[in-house]
Amino acid sequence: MTGTDTGIDAVVNEAVERAAAAGARWRATPASERAGVLDALSEALLKHADELWPVADAETHLGEARLRGEIARTAAQFRLFAEVLRDGAYADAVIDHPDPGATPPRPDVRRMNHPLGVVAVFSASNFPFAFSVGGGDTVSALAAGCPVVVKAHEGHPRTSDLTASVVRQALPDPDLLGIVHGFEAGGPLVRHPLVTAVGFTGSLAGGKAVKGLIDERPDPIPFYGELGSVNPVVVLPSADPAAVASGFAASLTLGVGQFCTNPGLVFVPEAGEEGAEFERAIAEAVAATTGGPMLTAKIREGYLRASGRLAEHAEAGGGLAVLASGAAGGADGSVAPRVFVTDLDTFADGLPELGEECFGPAAIVVRYRDPADLPAILGRLPGSLTATVHAVDAEEAREVVPALQRLAGRLIWNGWPTGVAVCWAMHHGGPWPASTTPAHTSVGAASIRRWLTPVAYQDWPDELLPPELRDGNPLGLPRRVDGRLEA
Amino acid sequence: MTGTDTGIDAVVNEAVERAAAAGARWRATPASERAGVLDALSEALLKHADELWPVADAETHLGEARLRGEIARTAAQFRLFAEVLRDGAYADAVIDHPDPGATPPRPDVRRMNHPLGVVAVFSASNFPFAFSVGGGDTVSALAAGCPVVVKAHEGHPRTSDLTASVVRQALPDPDLLGIVHGFEAGGPLVRHPLVTAVGFTGSLAGGKAVKGLIDERPDPIPFYGELGSVNPVVVLPSADPAAVASGFAASLTLGVGQFCTNPGLVFVPEAGEEGAEFERAIAEAVAATTGGPMLTAKIREGYLRASGRLAEHAEAGGGLAVLASGAAGGADGSVAPRVFVTDLDTFADGLPELGEECFGPAAIVVRYRDPADLPAILGRLPGSLTATVHAVDAEEAREVVPALQRLAGRLIWNGWPTGVAVCWAMHHGGPWPASTTPAHTSVGAASIRRWLTPVAYQDWPDELLPPELRDGNPLGLPRRVDGRLEA
Repeated sequence: MTGTDTGIDAVVNEAVERAAAAGARWRATPASERAGVLDALSEALLKHADELWPVADAETHLGEARLRGEIARTAAQFRLFAEVLRDGAYADAVIDHPDPGATPPRPDVRRMNHPLGVVAVFSASNFPFAFSVGGGDTVSALAAGCPVVVKAHEGHPRTSDLTASVVRQALPDPDLLGIVHGFEAGGPLVRHPLVTAVGFTGSLAGGKAVKGLIDERPDPIPFYGELGSVNPVVVLPSADPAAVASGFAASLTLGVGQFCTNPGLVFVPEAGEEGAEFERAIAEAVAATTGGPMLTAKIREGYLRASGRLAEHAEAGGGLAVLASGAAGGADGSVAPRVFVTDLDTFADGLPELGEECFGPAAIVVRYRDPADLPAILGRLPGSLTATVHAVDAEEAREVVPALQRLAGRLIWNGWPTGVAVCWAMHHGGPWPASTTPAHTSVGAASIRRWLTPVAYQDWPDELLPPELRDGNPLGLPRRVDGRLEA
Repeated sequence: MTGTDTGIDAVVNEAVERAAAAGARWRATPASERAGVLDALSEALLKHADELWPVADAETHLGEARLRGEIARTAAQFRLFAEVLRDGAYADAVIDHPDPGATPPRPDVRRMNHPLGVVAVFSASNFPFAFSVGGGDTVSALAAGCPVVVKAHEGHPRTSDLTASVVRQALPDPDLLGIVHGFEAGGPLVRHPLVTAVGFTGSLAGGKAVKGLIDERPDPIPFYGELGSVNPVVVLPSADPAAVASGFAASLTLGVGQFCTNPGLVFVPEAGEEGAEFERAIAEAVAATTGGPMLTAKIREGYLRASGRLAEHAEAGGGLAVLASGAAGGADGSVAPRVFVTDLDTFADGLPELGEECFGPAAIVVRYRDPADLPAILGRLPGSLTATVHAVDAEEAREVVPALQRLAGRLIWNGWPTGVAVCWAMHHGGPWPASTTPAHTSVGAASIRRWLTPVAYQDWPDELLPPELRDGNPLGLPRRVDGRLEA
């Protein structure tokens, strides 16, 4: 960029160019060495936990226990990706030897994944460590061989800087992780020609804005965004009302409801004594909850506006009512949990509005008469990260499963969606707007795939092939050779 | 949709709704049964080859040998995907048993891929079988468990209908493949709420238009497009001029240059006798070629316009000149191959225009003085499906490889990019505009991934799990269990 740079353009430009330069060496660094660096990063985070959590607590009000837990989880993510690199399947190495008899005749073709290039990461408000500067997007991109420039979240700038400093010190080249601040940094970051992909965790509105910027690029790049999720819970008649009510109240209010997996919609049986039982139990459990201060003033305003709109709706009658409210708690700016209740017809008439996420400890309980009515209404909901079923009798759920498989990326049985295990099998994504790309996850081992692109080599000389693709398998990777998977 | 439907809206709507209904059964059909259907489809195409090729020849002028070969290739694609389904790795089945000691504690999590839903396919002009109604997008989507609605290409409507009829007869439900015609069908197809992904092979302008329609959806869906590629060829000093010249002329004029992998840009050494030798040999070989009639009048006009613009540029002087032209050939509407020549500086000054694809048998030869100048110029080219190196001495190419890895999805050694093997290792994609999503291929076994989306099951009851994820591995799939790949 040139003399027309404003201040923020120059800052972003420098971060991206430094990252790109450092990235050229990083992509050429063997995966086994990158794994060692990730292990060192994990240790560095743990070593600095005593300094990190108080800074984050001052900015987010999330408290020591949660923040220490989150740092430990973030450190564990680095270790998982070290394991992913040592395992080697992420490279997706495939070798087809020549086959002149094939239709069409086949030359020698070998394929593996390579890193894309500089990754821009928009970090989240609600996980100052696990989905922020050193969070899942950053670690998976570094593991893939990509340098990263993070747009820090406005809600925790000091935590972001301190984390960046800890991470940069443990990297072989500090420029592999750049950090920029401020709403205004987003545009130049997404538009920068050297940026090859964007990771984003945030609101639907914010995600749409970033997508708009990407679409204006001469070369639109991949956008891996997680934009919002209402996380429906289907309670079937055989479920245990007391367990459902207490579990729901705990999940709803965890972290003052500021989880992308917060359960915002609960379908409960209406008919007979059982139905009333669920509603009463939920009302009692919610009434006993306490909220707390939210992450930022803006998020608090958003929660009060969205839950206030539902409250007005309830006051106006028409089928929606307040089921229960919790206490706000004593801290400055605390908010109270609020749960509304309605019937299936009113809910259906109120879509899409009633199906939208309200970020914070609010939910709608929807009474249904017949479980057979559930698939149709589930089919009208926006995509979610999770969907949950509560039932003692598994057969009771069979009819609802196909609708859930199309609705959400993770299906939970007799549990609660808050809390995402970081493991090989995890999928954290879903149809729009849960995720911008339904084939990808932002949590777990497979999230590295977002930052990789395959290259096939045809009749390529052995000495110029990456070692991953050489005959004899010098790195001992799992590979597919002539159609057979060799683990 | 309602009474406001115009005629084409109603036609598209019916095709999509029928496909969605048929798709609900197809997605529940075990993969082993879907594999049997794909084998039957392969046989059906071969059985009808005698009827199919003359219809296609009348519409495309591609000739019996090429068209019979293309039908055989298309049939082989169906068999490859039957193999992909029987292999089972496409399901990407992963099981993590509970681990209470993990950070955070891990429940039982199991993940596998499921079909997305109705796939819209925009078929290509230049492969009336292999990238059309029964082509790679359709077969990979059907294999994935997705029904398909194809927007037939205007250049071969009768071939499209006949192929659709052959395919539909061999499907368990003919509605699994819908077909719609006409430019006007594209909009309602892409906008239809039941369409879950779009496959597209065509021009950059057409692809941008489809992308624009997708971006306007309330739920933007994945767009897997292949939009254009200039396929640079780097000839290094040690290469054999005669072999390069004859291979280039053959590849340039194959199918009258109407391949997405047509070599449109050739870098040759300038200095000394060797350089002149390459240029002279290429000029002689191109002068001896014959073009032919193009696929459609519109494509012919596009070729004449784009190559004419280069010719005007050459007449005006300024560093670009005509190197050689071939003969047009006798058939009505035939076009002649045309090759231009310039030096590296003029080429660099003429970017991005001189780096754009000219669909048809035209190319630019670019003389370079020093191979060390190549990485910088390659870094300024738009993304390509392929990049090719010609050299006898492999070491001569080492400096140029990193630039090629970032430029193209398939790197070819001492060969030519036209002709794409359909195999496990193939990658047919590249940075924009070669492909709209750098992580995906439109040819080969991995192309099935475009139509799949993962679902994770957390603490899910065994009787409701898909068999792919049950303990004991009843289907004998390759799976990753507790971090270990079991092939």
